[in-house]
Amino acid sequence: MAFMEISVVPLGTGQPGVGDFVADIIAYLRDQQIPHTLTDMGTIIEGEVEELLALAKILHEMPFRRQVWRVVTHISIDDRRDKKVHLQDKIRAVSQRLR
Amino acid sequence: MAFMEISVVPLGTGQPGVGDFVADIIAYLRDQQIPHTLTDMGTIIEGEVEELLALAKILHEMPFRRQVWRVVTHISIDDRRDKKVHLQDKIRAVSQRLR
Amino acid sequence: MAFMEISVVPLGTGQPGVGDFVADIIAYLRDQQIPHTLTDMGTIIEGEVEELLALAKILHEMPFRRQVWRVVTHISIDDRRDKKVHLQDKIRAVSQRLR
Amino acid sequence: MAFMEISVVPLGTGQPGVGDFVADIIAYLRDQQIPHTLTDMGTIIEGEVEELLALAKILHEMPFRRQVWRVVTHISIDDRRDKKVHLQDKIRAVSQRLR
Repeated sequence: MAFMEISVVPLGTGQPGVGDFVADIIAYLRDQQIPHTLTDMGTIIEGEVEELLALAKILHEMPFRRQVWRVVTHISIDDRRDKKVHLQDKIRAVSQRLR
Repeated sequence: MAFMEISVVPLGTGQPGVGDFVADIIAYLRDQQIPHTLTDMGTIIEGEVEELLALAKILHEMPFRRQVWRVVTHISIDDRRDKKVHLQDKIRAVSQRLR
Repeated sequence: MAFMEISVVPLGTGQPGVGDFVADIIAYLRDQQIPHTLTDMGTIIEGEVEELLALAKILHEMPFRRQVWRVVTHISIDDRRDKKVHLQDKIRAVSQRLR
Repeated sequence: MAFMEISVVPLGTGQPGVGDFVADIIAYLRDQQIPHTLTDMGTIIEGEVEELLALAKILHEMPFRRQVWRVVTHISIDDRRDKKVHLQDKIRAVSQRLR
């Protein structure tokens, strides 16, 4: 299993806010029952790399439906194969170290 | 105010885990009472851009104290000046839209 | 058409260098005759988003063949649909503006 | 010495192009005689980490002079301390391996 963080940024919209675009993404993930964490800087999703990149394609397409002509998407994948990790595991592990 | 997401990755450590390095960073932020959010993919910090980049320098240096010879650091800054935003605001705003 | 920049970083290799891993990627791209630009920080490839993400999967898998257990991959996609753009176009356009 | 790749993206400009913003950055770097490489996805600069982050602050500020209210900046730093590396070294090293 791997983690993907994705941030989909529409360019040239005429306004600084991107909340509607983020809401599109989160609505889709909820609808599809895909486990995810929304942060102040992006969305983190857990899954197999192939699934995650297929999902990245879907999320990257979304702003183009809203009259946007350019989208810049940043994706980070952290893929560890020596042990199973799940969302929140790292946060718990670090908290334990610092107790 | 701006947000910075930072991810500091030590290379060539001989083991896939990076928990000790993340714990160094979080211990420092707690000690300095710097508001932050640890996620599965990085650490998000709120502040003025100049302060955030000065902090990035400090966090980027940390792995070198642990016998590491190469560090790759990714920093994203989201700097909005038309209104004040704080950590968790975006998450709340999206949740309200989706209710 | 879109651009993808990709950087595939193996963790825990025991040595700071990653040249062999970068060479694997470039050898593959040459072999497949996929147009690309190697930079000091990653590899830039031009194509349709779906193809680019399928390629990202292949490139991300490569270090796992070399006894690596964790790979962190960063992908940026710049996808502009109001006009056709190709590798080097932006660089030329900026040079012209600055003449 | 380290490398920094920086990409400064203005949001809400009303148009998909960002060439004027990139030209501002390159004009500044030329004027200051700071060695750099412009790529299709960002600008790569060589220097000490402290200098690079100070420069990142200056480049990140630039779009705000052009009536922009939100800027998203991505910075990657690759800092290797076991040997001296310069711009283009990695590209040459990979080319040699693939000969």
